[in-house]
Amino acid sequence: MQRPLLVVFLVLAIGGACQTSTHTPPPAAGNSPVAAHTPFDPEPWRDEVNGLLRDALVAGRSYELLSELCRVAPLRLSGSVGAEHAVAWARDTMLALGLENVRLEACMVPHWERGSIERLELLDESSAPAPLRILALGGSVATPVGGISAGAIEVRSFEELEQRADEVRGKFVFFNRPMDPGQHDCFAAYGGAVDQRSAGALRAGELGAVGALVRSMTQRLDDSPHTGAMNYDEQRPRIPAAALSTLAAERLSAALAADPALQLQFELDCRTLPDAPSANVVGEIVGREAPQEIVLVGGHLDAWDVGHGAHDDGAGCVHALEAARLILARGLRPRRTIRVVLFMNEENGTRGARAYFAAHAHEPHVLALESDAGGFTPRGFSTDAAPESLATLQRIGALVAPTGAERVFPGWGGVDIGPLAARGVVLMGYRPDDERYFDHHHSERDTLDQVHPRELANGAAAIAGMIYVVADAPERLPANPIPAPAQRR
Amino acid sequence: MQRPLLVVFLVLAIGGACQTSTHTPPPAAGNSPVAAHTPFDPEPWRDEVNGLLRDALVAGRSYELLSELCRVAPLRLSGSVGAEHAVAWARDTMLALGLENVRLEACMVPHWERGSIERLELLDESSAPAPLRILALGGSVATPVGGISAGAIEVRSFEELEQRADEVRGKFVFFNRPMDPGQHDCFAAYGGAVDQRSAGALRAGELGAVGALVRSMTQRLDDSPHTGAMNYDEQRPRIPAAALSTLAAERLSAALAADPALQLQFELDCRTLPDAPSANVVGEIVGREAPQEIVLVGGHLDAWDVGHGAHDDGAGCVHALEAARLILARGLRPRRTIRVVLFMNEENGTRGARAYFAAHAHEPHVLALESDAGGFTPRGFSTDAAPESLATLQRIGALVAPTGAERVFPGWGGVDIGPLAARGVVLMGYRPDDERYFDHHHSERDTLDQVHPRELANGAAAIAGMIYVVADAPERLPANPIPAPAQRR
Repeated sequence: MQRPLLVVFLVLAIGGACQTSTHTPPPAAGNSPVAAHTPFDPEPWRDEVNGLLRDALVAGRSYELLSELCRVAPLRLSGSVGAEHAVAWARDTMLALGLENVRLEACMVPHWERGSIERLELLDESSAPAPLRILALGGSVATPVGGISAGAIEVRSFEELEQRADEVRGKFVFFNRPMDPGQHDCFAAYGGAVDQRSAGALRAGELGAVGALVRSMTQRLDDSPHTGAMNYDEQRPRIPAAALSTLAAERLSAALAADPALQLQFELDCRTLPDAPSANVVGEIVGREAPQEIVLVGGHLDAWDVGHGAHDDGAGCVHALEAARLILARGLRPRRTIRVVLFMNEENGTRGARAYFAAHAHEPHVLALESDAGGFTPRGFSTDAAPESLATLQRIGALVAPTGAERVFPGWGGVDIGPLAARGVVLMGYRPDDERYFDHHHSERDTLDQVHPRELANGAAAIAGMIYVVADAPERLPANPIPAPAQRR
Repeated sequence: MQRPLLVVFLVLAIGGACQTSTHTPPPAAGNSPVAAHTPFDPEPWRDEVNGLLRDALVAGRSYELLSELCRVAPLRLSGSVGAEHAVAWARDTMLALGLENVRLEACMVPHWERGSIERLELLDESSAPAPLRILALGGSVATPVGGISAGAIEVRSFEELEQRADEVRGKFVFFNRPMDPGQHDCFAAYGGAVDQRSAGALRAGELGAVGALVRSMTQRLDDSPHTGAMNYDEQRPRIPAAALSTLAAERLSAALAADPALQLQFELDCRTLPDAPSANVVGEIVGREAPQEIVLVGGHLDAWDVGHGAHDDGAGCVHALEAARLILARGLRPRRTIRVVLFMNEENGTRGARAYFAAHAHEPHVLALESDAGGFTPRGFSTDAAPESLATLQRIGALVAPTGAERVFPGWGGVDIGPLAARGVVLMGYRPDDERYFDHHHSERDTLDQVHPRELANGAAAIAGMIYVVADAPERLPANPIPAPAQRR
């Protein structure tokens, strides 16, 4: 069914470009390959956007909504009872806020449970066993009952692991490369270290290791471990894996330096159950003139099974819900449909994203905006938009700059909306300040009290202004070129 | 002595303009009244600035320095023992960091003490006295021993107070206008409400009130009152004044609505002692080519006598100290002198600022930069620079944008450096994100744990880059026009 729909979509995309081809070039995109175009003038929407921005602060409900979600379903990993509660809350909330076409869109999700035993101890013969704080990585297999006792080697990279391959068999591999504190972009620092978490067990397992121990992905030095997804494959041994708090990692590193033959005791009783039924939750403000054209705004409803998932990604869900509520509360009905999508299973499988793509990729999405970088003070939006659309989005962005979302810049959209890039959909990621994000991410510290009400509200306001103008502008935002198959994510 | 020095300064300022008059106009300042000029090119400093920015994160000492200050002198209101400790710590720290010409510059300061009794109670006959959380305003007189019992009227503005002048005599006036939550600029919201705190007692006192009760200057709804400065004058009665927590203000408002004849009991035992000796603390990196030209960077060392003064203004002091340390640690010695000034008595008298002006206004200050808006994630710098200098500062600012200090925009410098505007000195204020600032400002919540290490470090880095390039550029930043006397602050 995909091929004919792709043709339809191409026709629509080309149609969109033709509609806009009679104008003069924008000043900031003179060497762009797209059709010449009068710069988009967002001025007619200024008063309405200012109203949205003010409403979010003086009569906003962001923090109240997030408080509800964190109370109803603080733990909502895919397949859990908490995730079921979160889905029900999201549906009920969309109905209560006045969204239209509210529905669950079913998908099957992985179902992994942490269990009740997470134990890593230094077996120093001169003293009692010293426990280190850990969290099993999501998807890990358990250890045998009673745990595994073995020595360990510490490495900082897969290169070092390969060089020391002959030392690995029968031992734990301790991946201890910190996130680079000198990176200003904290997501880039995360990206530069997270291979240890996602692939450490895979790489250590194929060399005969008995377990993978990974330094938590955070710049903080504290005793809260940070979990997250990891991968196995069919070809390589599945060994258990856990994240150490950064303090535990420092301690283990020092202990191994003092005694390279130090023995560790490691036990997990996590398990993977059969896939479980779950759902994306969807609601809309149906467009008044072009209801078939979609401006998607969303976050992901699942979260790791520690803390409240307040920043990751309760905040993003609330941003999307509150953005729609703000628009409705002012009695606005934009030209196009605004579709709120709260995705299931971003954290460990992206089954919700795949289900959404399978069901909806044929529909003309004008923009897909995901908020999945926390509820901190706004900085702006990143987007994969081609130059002409980028210039338009920057002009709209100027209207929401008072929130702190001052920049629209080239970059990443989001995990859940990512597949839509293959259809030329312009993707956008909401970008709050990131300095505090990895203090909380995937840890017991990701709690409601770490979200600031005004920062959260300003994010919802910025998103509301952005999606409202995109959905209401007479001319459709030009689609991106359809990438060649090799370029697709 | 001021007139001859002003002449010297004018000659220097004109000289500076002449040095730079042979260039072509900058693209962004074509209609500026200043001399035509090649746009300043900050590119030669990019690598050094990048080094400063990275050092601040990977080998920075901001948080360590702030921890020290908050431990040594958490309470450091002018005239207190804590202020003496802070002065000694600042001097010792400057010496330890390798600053030159480290010295105390004496000034006399007000000496007000909070005392031990701060009591406001609702005297509802049907129940026990209900205490409300308050803090005396700085400079308030005490109540008579045993306190004052009286009724109260609630007002939202001085206009309302005037309209109800005949109800005031013998009562408390309760000023309960909140900071406007709809303002995106939180300092503007503060500015729109703080007249109640600074002048409420004065205005109520002249109408015969027995005390002024002021809603705390914060957007939060909590039970932490926020103190701050207030004024009396020679002509009007001096009545005692205190800030109520916002929850206490809400409760008092509801109680008065239910029973307008409600009686309150109010007692303070604060007192004002004779002026005390204190000092600004000054240290320098002496310029290698033009040591007589000064780039001032500073904050204020005094703080209110609750919390740690961590954001207000421990952070600003540390920003200035760490900026200088970062420059020294890279072995850099700029063309001009960088002078770190930690001012005394910003909070309740600005005696340090006045002493600095009296002693140094004759020296050629190229730029004066104050950090007094907290230690939160950087947003940029505000400045009163005339267009040509603004354009230059914006170009330098682009080098430090990776810290988050993305904008250099027209605006406020700072309280302590303010007097220098009369001499044409370009003033600049460091501007971090402001959403959380008034949660903490002047309250027991302004503590070290509310400062984020990376956010603080990025502020120091941004300031280091800015002052280093201004101090090192071959051409001096053009001075502002000397304001006519009527325009002077």
